Amino acid sequence: MNEFQLIAHYFSTSHCGSDVLLGIGDDAAVIDVPVGYRLVTAVDTIVEGVHFPNNSHAGDIAYRALAVNLSDMAAMGATPRWFTLSLCIPKAEEPWLEQFAASLSKFAAQYNVQLVGGDTVKGPLNISIQMMGIVETDRWLTRSGAKPGDLIMVSGIPGEAAGGLQLLLHPRTSLNDTEQSHAQHLIQRFLQPQPRIELGRALRLHASAAMDVSDGLLTDLSKLCAASGCGAQLQLEQLPTSSALRMLFGERHESLILSGGDDYELLFTINPKSLSLLQDISAHTQVSCTLIGVMTEESGVRCLRNNQSVVITDTGFDHFSV
Amino acid sequence: MNEFQLIAHYFSTSHCGSDVLLGIGDDAAVIDVPVGYRLVTAVDTIVEGVHFPNNSHAGDIAYRALAVNLSDMAAMGATPRWFTLSLCIPKAEEPWLEQFAASLSKFAAQYNVQLVGGDTVKGPLNISIQMMGIVETDRWLTRSGAKPGDLIMVSGIPGEAAGGLQLLLHPRTSLNDTEQSHAQHLIQRFLQPQPRIELGRALRLHASAAMDVSDGLLTDLSKLCAASGCGAQLQLEQLPTSSALRMLFGERHESLILSGGDDYELLFTINPKSLSLLQDISAHTQVSCTLIGVMTEESGVRCLRNNQSVVITDTGFDHFSV
Repeated sequence: MNEFQLIAHYFSTSHCGSDVLLGIGDDAAVIDVPVGYRLVTAVDTIVEGVHFPNNSHAGDIAYRALAVNLSDMAAMGATPRWFTLSLCIPKAEEPWLEQFAASLSKFAAQYNVQLVGGDTVKGPLNISIQMMGIVETDRWLTRSGAKPGDLIMVSGIPGEAAGGLQLLLHPRTSLNDTEQSHAQHLIQRFLQPQPRIELGRALRLHASAAMDVSDGLLTDLSKLCAASGCGAQLQLEQLPTSSALRMLFGERHESLILSGGDDYELLFTINPKSLSLLQDISAHTQVSCTLIGVMTEESGVRCLRNNQSVVITDTGFDHFSV
Repeated sequence: MNEFQLIAHYFSTSHCGSDVLLGIGDDAAVIDVPVGYRLVTAVDTIVEGVHFPNNSHAGDIAYRALAVNLSDMAAMGATPRWFTLSLCIPKAEEPWLEQFAASLSKFAAQYNVQLVGGDTVKGPLNISIQMMGIVETDRWLTRSGAKPGDLIMVSGIPGEAAGGLQLLLHPRTSLNDTEQSHAQHLIQRFLQPQPRIELGRALRLHASAAMDVSDGLLTDLSKLCAASGCGAQLQLEQLPTSSALRMLFGERHESLILSGGDDYELLFTINPKSLSLLQDISAHTQVSCTLIGVMTEESGVRCLRNNQSVVITDTGFDHFSV
């Protein structure tokens, strides 16, 4: 098959939502953005050996490419709707493409988003997805709305994905059954992060600021502080953790929570008055949310443990700072 | 500078159109798509050594990445408005980034499109732009509307860009002044293709089908035929050509016109009744348009020279069919 036949075979979608007026196969797609909504758009690219290990399963790669972009929609309180795919692959291998396309299609259906356009080119493995969603007029979340006194919350357990990646890269051989099961859980958290779409949608009416945790909790909290023009005080003893992280990483588990990336949990701030409402949201969306600190007037992020100041040196993942 | 500072420094835009409610720097951009318009979106990726020669100038790369996507908007009759950039670079070199960003910014301003989001990752050079535009409800062009009897037209002179690329890859040493000047012209046609935005906008009310010529005239015409469910008869002696192409490529010039890609001219069909109207459009937009054939009932593309059937074997550029 040549390039065009490959694309046609694996990425054409017969099913089109009524809001997609022209789908894959023309020079561009035409979309009906409903009146009363804003278009929300983000792009995230993943590269082999940088964002996922070499020789990862094609299905896992497709899931990750989609999930990291869905997570950006969650952080905005938006409903993801459509996406374009730019797939750069060294060679056109049918089994690989089949697995990739099947996984992409499965998870796109699960999250109710539709592939509307794409480009397949030859080159080192690189998958770029541009996600488009909608949000009600003036209802989106930003990083910049936090105020001193707002409570800092995080969903799920950041660090588990980074732990899973460590276990993938450096497999352990002599684990007992419990450790095995924990290791599987962490690896799954890396391979299939859960974009917090529903939580983001619920938060859009209540959070003062939100973003997703992709580069590590401390690094991302610093960005939220900078965008909001204030600072943060983090209570280390309040950080969410798991027996899997503690059992497999011992003392290092806190460093993973603070600096491991790839969890795609939501980091957000709320007015203290909204705390009980948030408990309802957390129960309704079945996503645990943990209070981990408070926003401050003074800029920068300070970490406290039992009210003692602690200096953290390992502050997250940065592709270029090697 | 680390990754975040680099992005902030080179790709943050202080100027925001009023339709960009939230620009670069958050998890996603928020855009106001005007009522009465449809969103048109396409993605095109360019890879070093595949879509442009190794060691190309950063400014030329930025221009190309933008132009190929603007051309998709032209083919739809859409007005390009916003774009996201995914930039994958081996290392963060300031002079390169500065040139890239300056060129991107210059040409974005020239075509009145705005960078609203991006992602910078580490890896082999790969630039993916996702372009978004708008078109009046039900007024967009497609590849699928051509009918038997419609005239086939092409803008500009396809093949010049492919000639320019040949000259870039295999520089000639003993050219006289006229040949030098022709060579410069062709190289410029490769380096800075002109997206036919205005022509596309004018055609949206009159053309029955349209697409841009990126993979070669014959290949792209075949796609238009397949999408429209009919065929085409091409008159080779009517193909537009130039003294630059004839002088520097002799007998090979026709092959470049038929099979060279990268021109980003518009290939379109019109009802014969619209021919005089098209002459007005061509004069108004200052883009030459040449009648090169006619759509037929019978599927497939047939080439005629002075009413004799001719078989063309070299049918364009396909990344994977090496």
